[in-house]
Amino acid sequence: MVTRMVDLRSDTVTKPTESMRAAIANAEVDDDVLCSDPTALRLETEMARIMGKEAALFVPSGTMGNLISVLVHCEVRGSEVILGDNCHIHIYENGGISTLGGVHPRPVKNNEDGSMDVDLIEAAIRDPRLEICYPTTRLICLENSHANSGGRCLSVEYTDRVGELAKKHGLKLHIDGARIFNASVALGVPVHRLVQAADSVSVCLSKGLGAPVGTVIVGSRAFIARAKILRKTLGGGMRQVGILCAAGLVALQENVAKLEGDHKRAKLLAEGLNKIKGLKVDVASVETNIVYFDILEGSNITGPKLCKIVGEHGILLMPESLSRIRLVIHHQISGSDVQHTLSCIQQAVTGGPTENGDV
Amino acid sequence: MVTRMVDLRSDTVTKPTESMRAAIANAEVDDDVLCSDPTALRLETEMARIMGKEAALFVPSGTMGNLISVLVHCEVRGSEVILGDNCHIHIYENGGISTLGGVHPRPVKNNEDGSMDVDLIEAAIRDPRLEICYPTTRLICLENSHANSGGRCLSVEYTDRVGELAKKHGLKLHIDGARIFNASVALGVPVHRLVQAADSVSVCLSKGLGAPVGTVIVGSRAFIARAKILRKTLGGGMRQVGILCAAGLVALQENVAKLEGDHKRAKLLAEGLNKIKGLKVDVASVETNIVYFDILEGSNITGPKLCKIVGEHGILLMPESLSRIRLVIHHQISGSDVQHTLSCIQQAVTGGPTENGDV
Amino acid sequence: MVTRMVDLRSDTVTKPTESMRAAIANAEVDDDVLCSDPTALRLETEMARIMGKEAALFVPSGTMGNLISVLVHCEVRGSEVILGDNCHIHIYENGGISTLGGVHPRPVKNNEDGSMDVDLIEAAIRDPRLEICYPTTRLICLENSHANSGGRCLSVEYTDRVGELAKKHGLKLHIDGARIFNASVALGVPVHRLVQAADSVSVCLSKGLGAPVGTVIVGSRAFIARAKILRKTLGGGMRQVGILCAAGLVALQENVAKLEGDHKRAKLLAEGLNKIKGLKVDVASVETNIVYFDILEGSNITGPKLCKIVGEHGILLMPESLSRIRLVIHHQISGSDVQHTLSCIQQAVTGGPTENGDV
Amino acid sequence: MVTRMVDLRSDTVTKPTESMRAAIANAEVDDDVLCSDPTALRLETEMARIMGKEAALFVPSGTMGNLISVLVHCEVRGSEVILGDNCHIHIYENGGISTLGGVHPRPVKNNEDGSMDVDLIEAAIRDPRLEICYPTTRLICLENSHANSGGRCLSVEYTDRVGELAKKHGLKLHIDGARIFNASVALGVPVHRLVQAADSVSVCLSKGLGAPVGTVIVGSRAFIARAKILRKTLGGGMRQVGILCAAGLVALQENVAKLEGDHKRAKLLAEGLNKIKGLKVDVASVETNIVYFDILEGSNITGPKLCKIVGEHGILLMPESLSRIRLVIHHQISGSDVQHTLSCIQQAVTGGPTENGDV
Repeated sequence: MVTRMVDLRSDTVTKPTESMRAAIANAEVDDDVLCSDPTALRLETEMARIMGKEAALFVPSGTMGNLISVLVHCEVRGSEVILGDNCHIHIYENGGISTLGGVHPRPVKNNEDGSMDVDLIEAAIRDPRLEICYPTTRLICLENSHANSGGRCLSVEYTDRVGELAKKHGLKLHIDGARIFNASVALGVPVHRLVQAADSVSVCLSKGLGAPVGTVIVGSRAFIARAKILRKTLGGGMRQVGILCAAGLVALQENVAKLEGDHKRAKLLAEGLNKIKGLKVDVASVETNIVYFDILEGSNITGPKLCKIVGEHGILLMPESLSRIRLVIHHQISGSDVQHTLSCIQQAVTGGPTENGDV
Repeated sequence: MVTRMVDLRSDTVTKPTESMRAAIANAEVDDDVLCSDPTALRLETEMARIMGKEAALFVPSGTMGNLISVLVHCEVRGSEVILGDNCHIHIYENGGISTLGGVHPRPVKNNEDGSMDVDLIEAAIRDPRLEICYPTTRLICLENSHANSGGRCLSVEYTDRVGELAKKHGLKLHIDGARIFNASVALGVPVHRLVQAADSVSVCLSKGLGAPVGTVIVGSRAFIARAKILRKTLGGGMRQVGILCAAGLVALQENVAKLEGDHKRAKLLAEGLNKIKGLKVDVASVETNIVYFDILEGSNITGPKLCKIVGEHGILLMPESLSRIRLVIHHQISGSDVQHTLSCIQQAVTGGPTENGDV
Repeated sequence: MVTRMVDLRSDTVTKPTESMRAAIANAEVDDDVLCSDPTALRLETEMARIMGKEAALFVPSGTMGNLISVLVHCEVRGSEVILGDNCHIHIYENGGISTLGGVHPRPVKNNEDGSMDVDLIEAAIRDPRLEICYPTTRLICLENSHANSGGRCLSVEYTDRVGELAKKHGLKLHIDGARIFNASVALGVPVHRLVQAADSVSVCLSKGLGAPVGTVIVGSRAFIARAKILRKTLGGGMRQVGILCAAGLVALQENVAKLEGDHKRAKLLAEGLNKIKGLKVDVASVETNIVYFDILEGSNITGPKLCKIVGEHGILLMPESLSRIRLVIHHQISGSDVQHTLSCIQQAVTGGPTENGDV
Repeated sequence: MVTRMVDLRSDTVTKPTESMRAAIANAEVDDDVLCSDPTALRLETEMARIMGKEAALFVPSGTMGNLISVLVHCEVRGSEVILGDNCHIHIYENGGISTLGGVHPRPVKNNEDGSMDVDLIEAAIRDPRLEICYPTTRLICLENSHANSGGRCLSVEYTDRVGELAKKHGLKLHIDGARIFNASVALGVPVHRLVQAADSVSVCLSKGLGAPVGTVIVGSRAFIARAKILRKTLGGGMRQVGILCAAGLVALQENVAKLEGDHKRAKLLAEGLNKIKGLKVDVASVETNIVYFDILEGSNITGPKLCKIVGEHGILLMPESLSRIRLVIHHQISGSDVQHTLSCIQQAVTGGPTENGDV
């Protein structure tokens, strides 16, 4: 029988802490559609302040946060958005910006670090007044930290350059900041500075920050006013939503400080995995809380099989492909959990005793 | 200073009860996107059972419940939906079925009781294979109880007839059942019987049932499977959503039984208002928890002004127009609140002492 | 064997005259997508002048003319258009404004004369900044002459009033002027005056004007600039389109003058039909080239059967329903054709000799 | 004064030949929306036969041909299409598949020869039943010949392999065959064999084939039946369209045979350009009628300036960028025009006498 669960599939699996549950139970609430829920208002005000933007809006998910942001910036028919070909919006959000919003994506190659070459972005900008068969580019999207690139971070300098490019061409810049606090902590840069060039940012509370549900988008007052209408249209307007926002406030107060430890444990995990014969991790690229490892050719085991074996020991991993597995660290994964994970993976891969030692 | 708040703007303003808050605080949760949150699963299973359908899905709002339902039934481009010209989907959901889903609405006149004539519905059904410039009718929507008709109820017989019509023409039938439990209680018909003819129903937990957030849609397993994908696309997939579903389960267990009292107090309110000189209520049409009253011509007061005056006494009303006001009763409105409301409205309208007496 | 065809199904069935064929054969052409086809340019300039607008654009059909117009005026997501519940855009254009453009229609009751009550239009105007669950009304559409109302005409006074309402609320006014020249001739009002209040008009060349293909939309320079891009997006940009536009120019030069005769023959046809026992025509309502007649109850014949019988004599009619038939007069229907038609219909209905006399 | 125009901007600039004008002037026509125009029917039947498909439909443009094809194959909401990142649909059609159809594009890298690696296509196929945040891949698009790759051709073997992949995964295959006859002639493969694996093909009459207007899409009867409805929705249904189709029939009869000569002259042009000091052409890649040349670094002239200079001599070119120019050969460009063009370009580039000699 499994007595210990180590869920490394994502940082979305975190469960509310005791202080969150207490805050939820006692949350002051009102009808957030008819007027304003006071707790939602407090959360939105606090997030706007932290991110250095005028206003904020609580939404049910990161997908809705990005969807609303793209659609508000691209509210005129015939809009095109430039975004990374490996970014979350393009790959993991059902193509919603096209399906629901009619926005045309123009993917540009994502580099290994999650960036796109600035000259490739510029070359992709288009205007039908110059060539009648073009759509109108209205938005550039960045993702920071960049999940599919292993949680790597975009620097302030890079973000500022893209922001300048956007301004030069009259475009908007949106940052999918689902894990922007991870990037801020890893880079040692205040989060408001990191998103200074952005017209909007989508920030998740329910990933590394550990809240049960929710994302906050931030931007100008005009942007948020339009976002609020679109949230209603999408069905994301909720009533006594302070229940969820109370947990979000606790997440901001208590859990940002835990991210640095997450990153350290991710590094330890990466180093440990890299020591296991038959596995390979690019340790240097582990900048935040996400670790990808590859099963080297010649190994007897596949990714899905490895996930299955360690799953029987209560360790949950996410196979990316036949030879690649993703692990995500969060505040409910202890150093001891990391050691246990390394030990179980080593046994599964080598069949022998561990080199990392178990607890 | 106001010491007593009587919020009659809507039944969406209800705040979670103590038992709900306790359930929320102790809810068992998991990541409802990656796997299934156990509390969400319990709520969905329970709602499917009560409604007599195969499966169910929790969504953030009634708007999303209707939007998903319409879009799943109309998933092929070129779809048309027949719906009441005064129904919630057509009037109060931002036109989202067109804006986001490209579905063309074909409104049919709503009768005073919220129904549409069945022969008008049939005459509106269209097929481009017969006339190339027609869209394809794929769905009929009913609303029960019907909010804009003052909460009046559609009978089982009527609903069954529309269901038969839909079947005859190969169409689907969706019921916007935001307040379907109110209709069930008022008609004395089990709710599953009332929606038997429907392919899908959207049921709100956050209106008369008093939960802080959420709606459940029910239908066949295939319908719910597609609905789940669309919920993700819309950004309605939430993580540890058991926090909200726990309250929904309490709402089902404890609050359905309170609706009968709501209806009685609504009737008392209607009768009381009708006695006030200068006001007019169609008392017979008050079938559930919604009361509309009209300010008769020749009165010195307008709807907005009346709302403002009684608002200063802590009574919140929703003006519909210059001469029409809506009141909605819910479990947090007591008989005493009704008397107090009548008294304040009478004073505002007549300037004199009350005929109803106050508490 | 049928030796004489009288096609009364629509004025779209007209075939190019000899002068049109000559103009087509000799049309000066160029690539209208890369630069400007000179004949297209001449047609567009001429139509803009006639309609009193700044600019014009040739498009393949009336449907595309209306679609582009609505979509340009409603280019921001979340737009609603107010239009007649019996108008061509709502009934006969596949719901394309929603299906392809995401625009939400708000139908208002069409009166028998094709108008909508101005106060009903005003009551339907909406803004989400006032009520967050509303879409944004951006456009009012009129249709003149109004096909489904039997080709009846909207007066200058009415059109101006709606134009003032639109201006007052910051809305645009589009006129579906598929048969605007019929209205102009019937009312004795210059066509530019009749559309003076409109921001855009869609005018068909291939209906009463007899050109083989095409519609021209007119409006401001900015409107046409956007329309041109959208025409390309829809696939309505054509290359050596002067081939078609040459016929359009002939239609304007030669065929506008024929409409008065069409209207006279339509009146004759209506009067003749009304004399046939068992048929009923509201003769006074026949203002232009469209005639509807009803088969009275108690008759032995249905609409479709009547169409079949006269069809065997080369007379093509369009059944609207079991008891209603539509006939449309155009310049290729002579007075003799009208008499022949009356004679055949009378025989079909009564079985006996004609009261109208045949030629 | 310019006495000789050589328009090399595109093969869309061709003007109707005498035989086309005669055919147009005498075309038998009828209302193609109400019934079927006989000439349109003949063209559609002939094109279906030539392409080896069940049915065909005339549409106003290549853009509409592709748009309808993609939308019919992707008629269910949430569809994704895999297509080349440099193909016409993705780059030159305004993003219409998303803007109007809500289809999400998943671009895959185009190789230099216009193909996409088959394993990259396969890796891009997705299904939300496996991963809930994915759209549903429903279509693969190829382009043959591939305009942006300089008119290079996809082989039968390649096309068949992609067709097998599509079948294996239950996807459809569409070929943008705007210039499929050029590919057929260049490869020496019957055109029906070249598109055998495709579920639909869009074939332009107004490019190398020289008709003034129009494209024909081919596919199964069911596909064309749905395409016809969508053509109406888009506003592409035209009335006496035989006027245009008559020219299309002449194009098929007379102009396919001219393509081989176009390709020879394109080769001569490419070779001549490559001999000019300061210019560079990949002569081997000139497989059909499109020639790209690059202005080498160190040259004193830019693409736009070069276009301007030769334009003064009546030679029209299309600059692609500061250093790249496109030329397209068609049946109205003679060998002498090619020599004249080479001569003028050489003078513009070198300032000196020509190495190619002029006529």
